[in-house]
Amino acid sequence: MVINIDLDDKSYEITIGNLSKLNFNTKVAIITNPKVSGLWMQKLLSSLQAKEVYIITINDGEQYKNMQMVEHILDNLFNHRFDRNSLLIAFGGGVIGDITGFCAAIFQRGIEFIQIPTTLLSQVDASVGGKTGVNNRFGKNLIGAFHQPKAVYIDTQFLSTLPKREFSAGVAEIIKMAVMFDKEFFNFLQKSSLYEENNLQLAIKKAVELKAWVVAQDEKEKGLRAVLNYGHTFGHVIEKQTAYSTYLHGEAVGIGMMMANYLAIELGLLAKEQNKEIKKLLQTYQIPISYDIKNVENFYDQFFFDKKSSQNSIKFILPQGIGQHKIVQGVDKERVLTSMKNFLKGS
Amino acid sequence: MVINIDLDDKSYEITIGNLSKLNFNTKVAIITNPKVSGLWMQKLLSSLQAKEVYIITINDGEQYKNMQMVEHILDNLFNHRFDRNSLLIAFGGGVIGDITGFCAAIFQRGIEFIQIPTTLLSQVDASVGGKTGVNNRFGKNLIGAFHQPKAVYIDTQFLSTLPKREFSAGVAEIIKMAVMFDKEFFNFLQKSSLYEENNLQLAIKKAVELKAWVVAQDEKEKGLRAVLNYGHTFGHVIEKQTAYSTYLHGEAVGIGMMMANYLAIELGLLAKEQNKEIKKLLQTYQIPISYDIKNVENFYDQFFFDKKSSQNSIKFILPQGIGQHKIVQGVDKERVLTSMKNFLKGS
Repeated sequence: MVINIDLDDKSYEITIGNLSKLNFNTKVAIITNPKVSGLWMQKLLSSLQAKEVYIITINDGEQYKNMQMVEHILDNLFNHRFDRNSLLIAFGGGVIGDITGFCAAIFQRGIEFIQIPTTLLSQVDASVGGKTGVNNRFGKNLIGAFHQPKAVYIDTQFLSTLPKREFSAGVAEIIKMAVMFDKEFFNFLQKSSLYEENNLQLAIKKAVELKAWVVAQDEKEKGLRAVLNYGHTFGHVIEKQTAYSTYLHGEAVGIGMMMANYLAIELGLLAKEQNKEIKKLLQTYQIPISYDIKNVENFYDQFFFDKKSSQNSIKFILPQGIGQHKIVQGVDKERVLTSMKNFLKGS
Repeated sequence: MVINIDLDDKSYEITIGNLSKLNFNTKVAIITNPKVSGLWMQKLLSSLQAKEVYIITINDGEQYKNMQMVEHILDNLFNHRFDRNSLLIAFGGGVIGDITGFCAAIFQRGIEFIQIPTTLLSQVDASVGGKTGVNNRFGKNLIGAFHQPKAVYIDTQFLSTLPKREFSAGVAEIIKMAVMFDKEFFNFLQKSSLYEENNLQLAIKKAVELKAWVVAQDEKEKGLRAVLNYGHTFGHVIEKQTAYSTYLHGEAVGIGMMMANYLAIELGLLAKEQNKEIKKLLQTYQIPISYDIKNVENFYDQFFFDKKSSQNSIKFILPQGIGQHKIVQGVDKERVLTSMKNFLKGS
């Protein structure tokens, strides 16, 4: 299956299926981590032909997605005399994709890179949108660039070694897309197990197509693309409060979706019955749906430290029924607090 | 005078004339150095209106154009809670423009920036093209991005405090444009003193228009834009050999143009008489035209450490008469060495 990402001179293809022969008439550097390398490097190398192939392994984990690591990678490239015609391959999950894309964006003002995502989350999420970047002490992804890959290859075989929790975190993103944009897709997810290869490939394809449709209309994140942040406004606070160590990103977003749903109910956008359907689907994949907020006022205040809260006027991305979305601004603080209390009660 | 830089959704205007009122409904950070700040900050601030204005002063000099300084600037922006709607103003010469543009390119994946160049070189050269970046231990401008400014303001009043050598280095770039692209412009330069305000503004306008025409056709430097590197292939080696301390960039390019001319003569592209005309024009502004190569073999070898020499097949940008250019590849090493010897003899 091939999906065309239409971005004028930055268009590229996403291929879903078994990784086939990759031939490049250039120097190639594969950026990966020790885990992915140990499990799958042999498979990748057996498909890959290039002038020269270098492997740059970086530590696994969000805490290494920083400028020091970027400089480490760039130094490696310069040491091996990479030039403007060279190619980078991101081989791993979201961290690898983000940092490799950013290195490609700023190495000699931009070279090409290819994504071979090995987690479900990065397959459905990070492979479309051109967002690259790293964290710093002020927050996540605060330094970065928009830089589109030359191609993306999604091979679900890589998911066979993925921990179950990480698989579920990826499913959360798939459900997010369905709730925001496509009732039919939501219905498909209700009746089709994603543990079956065929369903999984179809779901990845659909989620990627939906995201591609959004991104094509709003490459630089000025409008519609904000809808992809359903669950993120709440999720980011949860991640921060738990020091990014309790929940995977997709899990925090899962909880955040539930919290957003309670606000949607409070504002009359979502029926309680619909919320239950979403909840049930999340639970099918053991995606966490509850969180002990402790202090709702305090939680609320933390919205305003989030980079998305420009000029202190927070925007909530909410479902309007299932399959449609609404961006709501200027919500009364009290109603947000009420919705959080209802979320805690689970009512 | 206003020049439109036509780059689709990245189009912007360059205004040549007295800096007039600048009004912004955002937070603004002015990135500058102590020298420019001391001489001209009052003038800039008296024209500027914004929500909040921060001034970030960085050390003056090419050696501070590095990633550490980028992080210093970004940290300042995050500390002052700059967001995606904030604006940077580059207020200084090429170093300030390059580093400010790069910070704007990677701060939260790109924010807007404005250039107010205060040297002649940056007014004619750095204000068009969208090249931003910093140096590292492997070379100049090796880390960077293409990021177009939102607007450029060129006020020749700032040049009144510019050292004479720096003024001349800027004139070298103007002459470069004329030799490569426009015989009529070259004739204008032969008969018009750039020490006269009016002529200077016209020359800046013409040089900027020529560069804009080139860049509009080749934004990402895949073809025609290479012609702007006339004098640079030789000039870079000179800069390296003299540890970037003997010559200003524009001066090294001036010498490089002369060296390129001797190769053009050797290849039958340029008449000796035409070379003399170019030489005379450079001399009018005390731009250096000679350089003690010492070892021509050694000089030649250093081409291949230059980032532009992809796959070891060096491209020479040469004048074809005055006002036209030719990119020549695969030149016999011996002919290059011969031309260098003729350059040394000045014959």
